[in-house]
Amino acid sequence: MIVVMKPGATGAEIQHMVERVEGLGLRAHVIVGAERTVIAAIGSKRPEFKESLESGPGVAQVVPILAPYKVASSEVKAERTVVRAGSLSVGGKSIGVIAGPCSVENEEQILATAHAVKQAGATALRGGAYKPRTSPYSFQGLKEQGLELLKRAREATGLAVVTEVVASEDVDLVAKYADVLQIGARNMQNYRLLEAAGKSGVAVLLKRGPSATIEELLLAAEYILDAGNPNVMLCERGIRTFEAHTRFTLPLATVPYLHSKTHLPVVVDPSHGTGHTYLVADMTLASVAAGADGLILEVHPDPEKAMSDGYQTLNCQQFADIMARSRRVAAAVDREIAG
Amino acid sequence: MIVVMKPGATGAEIQHMVERVEGLGLRAHVIVGAERTVIAAIGSKRPEFKESLESGPGVAQVVPILAPYKVASSEVKAERTVVRAGSLSVGGKSIGVIAGPCSVENEEQILATAHAVKQAGATALRGGAYKPRTSPYSFQGLKEQGLELLKRAREATGLAVVTEVVASEDVDLVAKYADVLQIGARNMQNYRLLEAAGKSGVAVLLKRGPSATIEELLLAAEYILDAGNPNVMLCERGIRTFEAHTRFTLPLATVPYLHSKTHLPVVVDPSHGTGHTYLVADMTLASVAAGADGLILEVHPDPEKAMSDGYQTLNCQQFADIMARSRRVAAAVDREIAG
Amino acid sequence: MIVVMKPGATGAEIQHMVERVEGLGLRAHVIVGAERTVIAAIGSKRPEFKESLESGPGVAQVVPILAPYKVASSEVKAERTVVRAGSLSVGGKSIGVIAGPCSVENEEQILATAHAVKQAGATALRGGAYKPRTSPYSFQGLKEQGLELLKRAREATGLAVVTEVVASEDVDLVAKYADVLQIGARNMQNYRLLEAAGKSGVAVLLKRGPSATIEELLLAAEYILDAGNPNVMLCERGIRTFEAHTRFTLPLATVPYLHSKTHLPVVVDPSHGTGHTYLVADMTLASVAAGADGLILEVHPDPEKAMSDGYQTLNCQQFADIMARSRRVAAAVDREIAG
Amino acid sequence: MIVVMKPGATGAEIQHMVERVEGLGLRAHVIVGAERTVIAAIGSKRPEFKESLESGPGVAQVVPILAPYKVASSEVKAERTVVRAGSLSVGGKSIGVIAGPCSVENEEQILATAHAVKQAGATALRGGAYKPRTSPYSFQGLKEQGLELLKRAREATGLAVVTEVVASEDVDLVAKYADVLQIGARNMQNYRLLEAAGKSGVAVLLKRGPSATIEELLLAAEYILDAGNPNVMLCERGIRTFEAHTRFTLPLATVPYLHSKTHLPVVVDPSHGTGHTYLVADMTLASVAAGADGLILEVHPDPEKAMSDGYQTLNCQQFADIMARSRRVAAAVDREIAG
Repeated sequence: MIVVMKPGATGAEIQHMVERVEGLGLRAHVIVGAERTVIAAIGSKRPEFKESLESGPGVAQVVPILAPYKVASSEVKAERTVVRAGSLSVGGKSIGVIAGPCSVENEEQILATAHAVKQAGATALRGGAYKPRTSPYSFQGLKEQGLELLKRAREATGLAVVTEVVASEDVDLVAKYADVLQIGARNMQNYRLLEAAGKSGVAVLLKRGPSATIEELLLAAEYILDAGNPNVMLCERGIRTFEAHTRFTLPLATVPYLHSKTHLPVVVDPSHGTGHTYLVADMTLASVAAGADGLILEVHPDPEKAMSDGYQTLNCQQFADIMARSRRVAAAVDREIAG
Repeated sequence: MIVVMKPGATGAEIQHMVERVEGLGLRAHVIVGAERTVIAAIGSKRPEFKESLESGPGVAQVVPILAPYKVASSEVKAERTVVRAGSLSVGGKSIGVIAGPCSVENEEQILATAHAVKQAGATALRGGAYKPRTSPYSFQGLKEQGLELLKRAREATGLAVVTEVVASEDVDLVAKYADVLQIGARNMQNYRLLEAAGKSGVAVLLKRGPSATIEELLLAAEYILDAGNPNVMLCERGIRTFEAHTRFTLPLATVPYLHSKTHLPVVVDPSHGTGHTYLVADMTLASVAAGADGLILEVHPDPEKAMSDGYQTLNCQQFADIMARSRRVAAAVDREIAG
Repeated sequence: MIVVMKPGATGAEIQHMVERVEGLGLRAHVIVGAERTVIAAIGSKRPEFKESLESGPGVAQVVPILAPYKVASSEVKAERTVVRAGSLSVGGKSIGVIAGPCSVENEEQILATAHAVKQAGATALRGGAYKPRTSPYSFQGLKEQGLELLKRAREATGLAVVTEVVASEDVDLVAKYADVLQIGARNMQNYRLLEAAGKSGVAVLLKRGPSATIEELLLAAEYILDAGNPNVMLCERGIRTFEAHTRFTLPLATVPYLHSKTHLPVVVDPSHGTGHTYLVADMTLASVAAGADGLILEVHPDPEKAMSDGYQTLNCQQFADIMARSRRVAAAVDREIAG
Repeated sequence: MIVVMKPGATGAEIQHMVERVEGLGLRAHVIVGAERTVIAAIGSKRPEFKESLESGPGVAQVVPILAPYKVASSEVKAERTVVRAGSLSVGGKSIGVIAGPCSVENEEQILATAHAVKQAGATALRGGAYKPRTSPYSFQGLKEQGLELLKRAREATGLAVVTEVVASEDVDLVAKYADVLQIGARNMQNYRLLEAAGKSGVAVLLKRGPSATIEELLLAAEYILDAGNPNVMLCERGIRTFEAHTRFTLPLATVPYLHSKTHLPVVVDPSHGTGHTYLVADMTLASVAAGADGLILEVHPDPEKAMSDGYQTLNCQQFADIMARSRRVAAAVDREIAG
């Protein structure tokens, strides 16, 4: 950490900060510059140190040097993590593909989708049973009945089930049915839920919140890892910006950036990331080219009749076409897609 | 709702959409324009209608005309809501002032703060017992012991207690100690928590998420209102933008905008909204001038030693000064501040 | 245009707005909904009509139905525009690649770069002679001497020259040397410059401003097109968001979105779009997969010594590697890259 | 500057960077931390040093310690600058108020407005003769004829004239008529224009670009100051964020933040900052309370008929009311407003 003093900081203020740094168990190293003095604080830090030093007298700013996440960091573990959950594998040469409807609606719908996406090469089935919805008046999901239907779809197709859990008290129940617990963007900083998912031992797909920094995403993952669960997949699903022509802005540089910072695998969600069916294909190809370890896509037998997210959902034929095209791009970047 | 067709939409597509609109129980009114056709859908809508129509063939966009929130809307209830909780009243001529430390740390700290802020004119005490922290390695709060200390502070000073609840399973416990349940920005879309807070009947301070639109904030409030709890205060605490010189960007136009859309009172948080102690005073005055019904401010007897948020926390003297200055501004806009 | 009235709008206000609409030469069509009245305004609009109606009494909002750009619209011209300028062709099956240093520094540097990028498959040379710099104390470019050096590089390699023009009074001079006038992000709404570039008849590479909407970008292009110059390439180079781990956020969905709205070709700039050399390769591949018609990349024989933008600049070997990898991805999406 | 090395940086890389730092004429001070090494670079920096060092081998990041602007900095000149131009004074105890229409439309309109705003307490008249418009099909201003009309309004009322200049080649002409050259948000980084305005010696109102950081704003001001013109007013007029309920987001913390960083006075534009007439009053009061040194407001005798910006324009009575209310708030913060 570098404590940067203000230009007019007095000797007493500098001395005070040196003592504060040493009081935290760090070594203080004073550097007198041409226009101001900085104090390098050397040693093992804790996150609150920065906050604490920032309010000191004569301090202009405190610049952290180390990333605040530990277990997620590629500095700690260089080999890439491969997350395996039933038929799904994410993080290796083969790109995992999670596909299915936004919401589980009924048995016919989920079975038809499961068969179709499996046929086209998907390696896991997504489907929401618990739906966090912006409006209290929107369809909120079939809940446990939806989980039952997902189970039947797994039995019928062998596909691993990825489904969202929205509260810590539901984790045990959902974990009985799911191969992967999805934690949605709205809950990325629901720490109680992160801890419960961490303790469950079930693999977790953690979606980035629409205004979360990458550091915040990695610290959220850290809650899960720190609870003893190493099977975390990070998911980029778009951020909120001034752009209004897409539902969110999908910043694909997240993929190589995360690959440089963490050993955890990275999944991309072009459905939420664009919010429009007609943009999903090209952004799926772009995600593969950018190095995505996995994809998650919304597919429904009849998107126009979907109970949620129809405007960004592919029908089964569109999905099969995208898979065929993605397979070619994957090969061009030395990856592969099943099917 | 206005369904806007693409320029080349065929007669069959237009007819299809007319039938879809009528299938939703709405009247369809076709308007043939110079370059494209639009269909006005008249009648009582539900939020999923828009989504559903958007994926129709030949549809360019669907433009909603009505706001999706109902109970929170000033179109439904014109008189301003005044929320009262113990010594705190927010929404009337007098501006409610909630002040106290980010975290409850120990009895001495919380009592000293409570006495000081009461003396300066605060009408409620804030203090976190359950702290949602970005890093799992940061101080997470004293939990129930912190609630105990808040209770003692209330007994000693008469100040209403405002404290955060971070999970639905904690609502009953926190509600035993708190006069106001604070729902933090990270949990604004934790719907399970919103519902539990709604059922508790205790007044709620709902903070805007850093990337939430105003519509999303009002829909989150709608979850609480819809559960039967009318005592909701909305809190603007800053949004995430490209600006890095402040911790968040505090968009004060939220205050008059909300006043035009909803009858719920609006509280502003200049501490989180700026993230720097030296900016808090001027932004507090600006909040009052913009029409804020309440203020929430971080105050600590010794901010440099605070276990969290010290860099944006006022000491007791700074708080008293700000209160004195705010009182003058309040008078200039025909409001008042106690003390 | 749809004029949406407020819920309590009076008959007189509605009548007033009908007259205002008709006064603009449009037909007014009143639709009385369940909760409010809307007036559809039918006929040929001009951009100021929306502004003008919005300030009318009892008006809640005015919703435009038509895009405000005309000549750039794919509704007006369905066939994709191919821009050709010397050795550069952008918009056809082959992806145009513009490569070179941020700034022209000296003859040796620009010639070495030109030979290297040509060898690797670039079809045009970029290099700044007039540099708009954030700080007045930064290197501002070699100006006309830089243009001279670019000319020599063209003579030596046959590569078309793409170079920035920063002021309308420079257009004639720069046009004498350049095959393509680059208009930088800072100048996207410098209308005098757009008009001058339009009148020059020379092909234009128009970069999106970091906070410009796509509609604003297309309207900026419209200034050039309207001045009689059809040879416009649009360039996505990243937008400003809350993300700080990249210099800008590169929103690749711009590519398919623009392809659906305009016939103009789309170039992507992964150098500025990421701001870090180590992210450029993956984002170049992603750009190709997303459907980019062209690429613009910063290349320098020794980036560490570059006078500007070294941190996002490729060396010649890195560029050649990226070209080889991009060629494979291009083939996988049925495009091609020279070389 | 602090050069932070990557964790695995080799001794050779560290040595290389030490030599690079010394090659720039700085002293290098190596600090070996628990997990990585940092090199403090001490001495007089130039802006390109940071860029240059960032691309070095083994470098994780380069952290600047000093602000890159010089003349604008309050570290260089502690006393606040007061800009005086005819009847307008901005930066002292009295708050300067610039009011008038978006566009000069005709003599009757500009004279009526000038008389009304003067009567209500404005100290300068605004009015656009050269209008930079997003669409080429919008009204572009009366140009020199508009300047003539502004001159007549000044003769009739004594009010200083503030009017926009959009290109360097127009500066001489506009400077003949204007007391203050306004540089609009779109042109904040039009450096040729900034230099020309700097050389003109006429006072400048420099508007912040909608995605400009404060540092970029101050560096833009630095172009004007560096050209020998000390009479610069900075103007906050709103930034582009994800918020869509206001035209821009008005971040009032800019006011106290700028006051801590620069001696230049700060003007706020609540008209563009909100984009809606009904929000202007409260945000004007908030601007005054936040410490604004000046205000700029759009006023028109009949906003519904205004040729531009009618939706955010006050009529004369609304302006007079806001002035009366602002006067009270100004007094409450020990400032004053004429009238």
